[in-house]
Amino acid sequence: MTIGLVSLVGAGPGDPELLTLKAVRVLGEADVVFYDDLVLPAVLAYANQARCLYIGKRKGRIAVSQEGIQQQMIDAAMANLRVVRLKGGDPFVFGRGGEEALALVAAGIPIEVIPGISAAVAAPGLAGIPVTHRGVASAFMVLTGHAPEVYEPICEHLEPNSVTLVVLMGLSQRTELAYFLLECGWRQDTSAAILSEAGMERSSVWTGTLANLPAIHGCRTPGTIIIGDVVSLRTHQHLTSSTTVGKGVWNGRELDLERALERSNFR
Amino acid sequence: MTIGLVSLVGAGPGDPELLTLKAVRVLGEADVVFYDDLVLPAVLAYANQARCLYIGKRKGRIAVSQEGIQQQMIDAAMANLRVVRLKGGDPFVFGRGGEEALALVAAGIPIEVIPGISAAVAAPGLAGIPVTHRGVASAFMVLTGHAPEVYEPICEHLEPNSVTLVVLMGLSQRTELAYFLLECGWRQDTSAAILSEAGMERSSVWTGTLANLPAIHGCRTPGTIIIGDVVSLRTHQHLTSSTTVGKGVWNGRELDLERALERSNFR
Repeated sequence: MTIGLVSLVGAGPGDPELLTLKAVRVLGEADVVFYDDLVLPAVLAYANQARCLYIGKRKGRIAVSQEGIQQQMIDAAMANLRVVRLKGGDPFVFGRGGEEALALVAAGIPIEVIPGISAAVAAPGLAGIPVTHRGVASAFMVLTGHAPEVYEPICEHLEPNSVTLVVLMGLSQRTELAYFLLECGWRQDTSAAILSEAGMERSSVWTGTLANLPAIHGCRTPGTIIIGDVVSLRTHQHLTSSTTVGKGVWNGRELDLERALERSNFR
Repeated sequence: MTIGLVSLVGAGPGDPELLTLKAVRVLGEADVVFYDDLVLPAVLAYANQARCLYIGKRKGRIAVSQEGIQQQMIDAAMANLRVVRLKGGDPFVFGRGGEEALALVAAGIPIEVIPGISAAVAAPGLAGIPVTHRGVASAFMVLTGHAPEVYEPICEHLEPNSVTLVVLMGLSQRTELAYFLLECGWRQDTSAAILSEAGMERSSVWTGTLANLPAIHGCRTPGTIIIGDVVSLRTHQHLTSSTTVGKGVWNGRELDLERALERSNFR
């Protein structure tokens, strides 16, 4: 019996041009592609010989359980199909790629990992914000912001303002997160940014401070929050469009900061 | 006067197949490419119409000053050349990409940022190590290990064993770093890995513990150090070769752990 190879592939932040050559190659070789939310149709178009199966958790469909996803991949590989598991960003930055790898390996399936560009680095980069900068930040911490029980134990021990914080999946908790960091001693005027839909057609950038982060409304998901003074180094005014999928990232659209400040408890 | 666009481009960890489509496109359009260490000839081959200028600091050549690099890029753009600044990994993860962006913008040069795959994520990924994993690590910190005055103030406040540490440029300081973390209260049996030349032909992987990290010798640069129990989730035994540039990452070569343990102060 021949068992098919499963490639765990990062699709990057959205823009199909930010796929790697290797991702494009294995998509073209695939018999079946299991894909997540945040994978655009233009990316799937490279899988022109494959059945593409959506197993994400948005779009109002019934979610497939994690075990169900893993079993489907195992079944496909056991049927000697060439399988691609396509995840937004990088397969091993959040998103349960490690769990899927372990399940596949436990079932005797050969796997390979093809890294992708994580929004943790690409979202600030596309907005002209370096996550590190000599004299400003020598390190960055990547965490999820979806639940206080996850981010609070990590953040409470950090020296305030000592590193750049890159918060994924944290838009809905941004108020609680900002207040928590302020309580921990982070400066109110720490620069902050919300990078919505980075690498996608409708990407937008808000910049402000940690103190007025809670007052911002209407940011679209997915959003990456950057907290740290590297945000003030943003060179967006001079950046040309950095994506080919849309009208350009650098359209200057920002939420109404004055209005946000009026709503803020910290003004 | 027309001014040329400067693209700050991430070349990824080494393997040319881990370039993005966009990086390949702009290399093909370039008149001049300024490249760093760690950019392989097979990557430069995509810049088939360009002059490729090495401005790195290794290989025994006289280093070009940072100001000199920036001035060369400005001069080329002012001469209406299409310029690519190619950096290993991602242009905005260490490596002074932010400084170059600011200098170019200050000179009135239009720039764009094309993210690349950082070794911070790709080195562990290619070794089958997820930087995050449910129940094991909910966050990861990326820092440079080249100088204690940089990593000590950041690490001393971290809750021991609370996050995955990803240490770039830290091979020469691994002894001091490991002892420092142990003094800070990190467990001696915390899993650790050294990923040498990830994504390159001669890549190798060492895994062990924080306590025996100091005893390992002979790792080639560049090396990424991972400290955290995610290392124990490594699925390498079943991974197929994940690079096309060499004989395969998964050659099972590990340094002599027993000998290393004998040398360790912590056994």
